[in-house]
Amino acid sequence: MNRSKIIPSNIPAPQLATDELIQALRWRYAVKRFDVDRQIPPSQWNAIEDSLILTPSSFGLQPWQFIVITSQSIKDQLPAISWGQQQPKECSHFVVFAGLRSMNTDYVDRFLEDVANERSLPIESLAGYRKVVLGFIERQESQIPDWAAHQLYIALGQLMTSAALLGIDTCPMEGIEPAKYDTLLGLDSTPYMTKVACALGYRHPEDTYANNAKVRFDRNTIIKTM
Amino acid sequence: MNRSKIIPSNIPAPQLATDELIQALRWRYAVKRFDVDRQIPPSQWNAIEDSLILTPSSFGLQPWQFIVITSQSIKDQLPAISWGQQQPKECSHFVVFAGLRSMNTDYVDRFLEDVANERSLPIESLAGYRKVVLGFIERQESQIPDWAAHQLYIALGQLMTSAALLGIDTCPMEGIEPAKYDTLLGLDSTPYMTKVACALGYRHPEDTYANNAKVRFDRNTIIKTM
Repeated sequence: MNRSKIIPSNIPAPQLATDELIQALRWRYAVKRFDVDRQIPPSQWNAIEDSLILTPSSFGLQPWQFIVITSQSIKDQLPAISWGQQQPKECSHFVVFAGLRSMNTDYVDRFLEDVANERSLPIESLAGYRKVVLGFIERQESQIPDWAAHQLYIALGQLMTSAALLGIDTCPMEGIEPAKYDTLLGLDSTPYMTKVACALGYRHPEDTYANNAKVRFDRNTIIKTM
Repeated sequence: MNRSKIIPSNIPAPQLATDELIQALRWRYAVKRFDVDRQIPPSQWNAIEDSLILTPSSFGLQPWQFIVITSQSIKDQLPAISWGQQQPKECSHFVVFAGLRSMNTDYVDRFLEDVANERSLPIESLAGYRKVVLGFIERQESQIPDWAAHQLYIALGQLMTSAALLGIDTCPMEGIEPAKYDTLLGLDSTPYMTKVACALGYRHPEDTYANNAKVRFDRNTIIKTM
């Protein structure tokens, strides 16, 4: 990300037309067969990475790492540990969403140092915030991996929506063997573990899944208003 | 949702400019103080509901219900069960993300009936798919609520991204008391339980949080490419 400060109040309110949004969400489907001949151009990919980096997370703690795989030799090894699915091999870019195994005071302090730097604040002014965050972590105890997974699924949602708007196809991949991913990607000795993944690229013109009508329960079943 | 069939291959590929996407994600922040005098107009709110309905989920099973609260008398009761936070009370629309407590064969069969109807297929042609889905559910056993929560966080991500693009502000709310929400909203006797929530509306012009520079770890810390 560009290191000039990003201040939300300095940015004009977006005003995408509702139709453009909804058409993109209708265009999206879980791609079964990617076009191996089409790669996502660097400028578009850069925007996709920005959308990952800009994902909101609890307290802004970003308990994650996103592993982007473009190496064909690594991609070729993924179907065998992904229930035989070919999307990781045939897509342009494959993203593995890895979450923290645990969180400690050091991690929080590193984050608060970033907050102090970015906002030109004395670190002491963040003492109250530090106490709240450390209290939160303590209450989570062994639940940190689950909490991190929740944050990663926000990132997955933001990623799929962002990609669709740019005309980039996706397939979310929950059907993977996380422990084998960890070993293949060298995550075993790191603070991060594989939680979920997503293939990105372009639908093959003959992917018949694109012709399936989208199925959703009725609005009144899904949405209750009170 | 409009009940005419939605077929992804019939929709032209979206082509939002990358800048427009990234500016929207930079404009977004977790609103602390909403403008109580501004309501989301119905046409915009309808698009937000569509973005919830169109959220991708495992096998398309949509293990969720979204409860939209606009009643001020209900909103007034929420801060007390939301760690004292005022956003549920001051926002325009408050969405509670509720997930299935369990999943059974009936649920799957209801879903497959929709698939058969929407795609004009004989139900028998879905027998193989039915077996896969039921096998999946059986393997999940007691994990259904966690699995449903993951799907809901995809919806939360899609919602926040969609809202930002439309110039609608949000505040994701994990700091809530789910059991008390269930009681207040009458979910105790339903198949759904509260998992997370999100306030939507417009930032108050004096919400100073909008002036805080966004804090993210360096790109190289968050993204690993291989």
